[in-house]
Amino acid sequence: MKQLLFVLFMVFSFGVTAQTDDAEILKTLYTTSLTDGKSYAWLDHLSNQIGSRLSGSLGAEQAVEYTKSELDQLGLDKVWLQPVMVPKWVRGAPEFAYIETAPGITTPVNICALGGSVETPNAGIKANVVEVKGFEDLATLGKEKIEGKIVFFNRPMQADLVNAFEAYGGCVDQRGYGAREAAKFGAVGVIVRSMNLRQDDFPHAGAMSYGDLPVSKYIPAAAISTNHANLLSSMLAIDPNVKFFFRQNCKQLKDVQSYNVIGEIKGSQFPNEYIVVGGHLDSWDLGDGSHDDGAGCVQSMDVLRLLKAAGIKPKRTIRAVLFMNEENGLRGGIEYANVAKSKGENHIFGLESDAGGFTPRGFSLDCSDAFFQKILDWKTLFKPYFVHYFEKGYSGADISPLKNNTIALAGLVPDSQRYFDHHHSANDTFEHINKRELELGAATMASLIYLVDKYGVGQ
Amino acid sequence: MKQLLFVLFMVFSFGVTAQTDDAEILKTLYTTSLTDGKSYAWLDHLSNQIGSRLSGSLGAEQAVEYTKSELDQLGLDKVWLQPVMVPKWVRGAPEFAYIETAPGITTPVNICALGGSVETPNAGIKANVVEVKGFEDLATLGKEKIEGKIVFFNRPMQADLVNAFEAYGGCVDQRGYGAREAAKFGAVGVIVRSMNLRQDDFPHAGAMSYGDLPVSKYIPAAAISTNHANLLSSMLAIDPNVKFFFRQNCKQLKDVQSYNVIGEIKGSQFPNEYIVVGGHLDSWDLGDGSHDDGAGCVQSMDVLRLLKAAGIKPKRTIRAVLFMNEENGLRGGIEYANVAKSKGENHIFGLESDAGGFTPRGFSLDCSDAFFQKILDWKTLFKPYFVHYFEKGYSGADISPLKNNTIALAGLVPDSQRYFDHHHSANDTFEHINKRELELGAATMASLIYLVDKYGVGQ
Repeated sequence: MKQLLFVLFMVFSFGVTAQTDDAEILKTLYTTSLTDGKSYAWLDHLSNQIGSRLSGSLGAEQAVEYTKSELDQLGLDKVWLQPVMVPKWVRGAPEFAYIETAPGITTPVNICALGGSVETPNAGIKANVVEVKGFEDLATLGKEKIEGKIVFFNRPMQADLVNAFEAYGGCVDQRGYGAREAAKFGAVGVIVRSMNLRQDDFPHAGAMSYGDLPVSKYIPAAAISTNHANLLSSMLAIDPNVKFFFRQNCKQLKDVQSYNVIGEIKGSQFPNEYIVVGGHLDSWDLGDGSHDDGAGCVQSMDVLRLLKAAGIKPKRTIRAVLFMNEENGLRGGIEYANVAKSKGENHIFGLESDAGGFTPRGFSLDCSDAFFQKILDWKTLFKPYFVHYFEKGYSGADISPLKNNTIALAGLVPDSQRYFDHHHSANDTFEHINKRELELGAATMASLIYLVDKYGVGQ
Repeated sequence: MKQLLFVLFMVFSFGVTAQTDDAEILKTLYTTSLTDGKSYAWLDHLSNQIGSRLSGSLGAEQAVEYTKSELDQLGLDKVWLQPVMVPKWVRGAPEFAYIETAPGITTPVNICALGGSVETPNAGIKANVVEVKGFEDLATLGKEKIEGKIVFFNRPMQADLVNAFEAYGGCVDQRGYGAREAAKFGAVGVIVRSMNLRQDDFPHAGAMSYGDLPVSKYIPAAAISTNHANLLSSMLAIDPNVKFFFRQNCKQLKDVQSYNVIGEIKGSQFPNEYIVVGGHLDSWDLGDGSHDDGAGCVQSMDVLRLLKAAGIKPKRTIRAVLFMNEENGLRGGIEYANVAKSKGENHIFGLESDAGGFTPRGFSLDCSDAFFQKILDWKTLFKPYFVHYFEKGYSGADISPLKNNTIALAGLVPDSQRYFDHHHSANDTFEHINKRELELGAATMASLIYLVDKYGVGQ
């Protein structure tokens, strides 16, 4: 009995001590990030000195060089570039569009070509418009009412969904596959309401795909700002015969060479167990990609730096990976997973930050029940930092190709309310980054990585 | 046994049904606020058509008229103005200040007089500067080193405190009592580092007090922007003999008549049990007071509207109170409590929103353990809205005079990271309000008011 009590005492006091130690480490990570973090200065450079970083662009190339050289200065065990061929889509001259109420009576509106779209003829396209809320409407209207027209997808993001990503998920099919679907009914072009919960003047870019349509059937697709989507809808309600004109000369060029940027701290006990933390280095071309996803990149870089600064020597190998080409191809994520597989690297955990540099709320976890339970046990450690959201769900695009039966994947979940004010638009700029919110995200990520490294993902 | 089981079944199923009903009501409140809320439009008017609302100003008077007329349109049982005499402090001509490195070699810096401060002589004050971190430094330096000088309080907000209000609490004594303390050592003026976690160019106003100093000892006090506080400190480090000049012609005038604005829905079962929800209508004069505290006012107004729109007929009497003069006197809060007491109104609950219109995180509760436990039982109802913070703590200034042994008080706790970027400065403007964040706050407040009305604050 005495012995049992002693064992119980040891187990209990060990548990308490471990939690106390961990609480101290987390405090150090948060304090360092908030008082001596580098993420904000790095993002300032990435956003204001380099700017937008669409795959294959000069900005993307400069971002690869810059982040590598910054990682080089952190005293990591290894920093390298992982080659990957990426698609190169270029916007070309600024798009131009107007609503024509009567011959010569026009109202200019703000549009941007969707990523992957074909150009219009040089002279543009002018046609009648048919407004729809979704793909079902296309079938209802049929070829007769669609052929030769521009299809205007105008289903707004649902404002009553508190999680803005849920509202996005409920609309993004229009952007992704609107052109493919409308083309099947003979439409000559597609205009899509921007994925934005605000009413404003920014058109929001983003990827679209023609799927398996024959190239001859490709029709140009553009996003229109929410204000101008409302305007167009109102004008159509008054007169269904108003015409829409748009011109864009974007092009898909040949694939070009680019890179994932990788920094690594080698594990002291289990060097072949890999933990990855990352964001994507490419961005859309209209803003400077501060929230999407410069934030995730600089936070991931700072995770390594914060761990080092706290004197933590990881048991497992920890990598920060700045993935290339998340926006229009995911080539970086796919290549990283392929190389990892071919080298037999045992990846046990991946954490992605690709939801903006806002106040961190928690993590969305794609993992076993056992690991999820473990994470829940860490909840109290995060409470002083107001990090409370630990739910099963989607992790992130770039780490998704690593998925297998054993790896645990996680996505940082920041507050989502403002994200789609900026996402993919000219409004995604550094001035909308709050230094503390960004730094709290980096510390939250470093804390989870620290705990996963220390305790593993097993039982 | 059978009977006991039946009773247990009834209790259990009733509990479940009640929770389901409540969940439905909360959903309605949130959905209505996000899709048909009025708080954003009201705040737009208050901020952009009226602007700053310092007690006794024309803006404050217009805000009283505007909010009363909006409440009048909501079909409440009663809307009225509650008279209260308020202090009238005026800033006068814009302040002017510079650092003088050598005679005629000057660098202008951004300052603003602190609320309640006396003016400088017309020609301004020019003196040597002694930089301190707090009141203890004054005692250490002593009269000898302080007399005839300007005391520069430069203890920054602690960046590693995750709750920004805690960082504020750790610094605000410099602003509140710096002049009183420095005057005791013969200082001729006081310059205080702005209460701001950012490094920027905005000086932040806020109240100060001379306490029981004789009027002849009053010395002028001003806030300096964080950037210029850093500049001044650096220049003093190079040369302790640099001089500081400032001029301000603010004045304390006679008290003037003003009002709390009150809207009421009469309780159907317990009309003499009062529930108050409020914010403060006055603001500092430099910005338009959108976050501090236009947000809290329009949210409180919308609480009544949202409850009505959801078809809720409160059992208890619910009042939205827009308090006057929180910033520099608290006269509105004090008067409201005095009148309530003199009329024998039994106030059972007060909720204040005075921490900005940011994403709501939860509530800070000043209440009995029993009621706190009840609130914790409601936690799951708030989970779908990411509202998770239910802790004991400070509620709010305006409702604090209502405090007695039985009332439960609560403060809405929004995300705090950005608040002090704006607080009391020219940077507190409507463009920094996110519509959804504001609306989520209103819905969160309405939800708590609904639950407290339904279940009371007892066991």
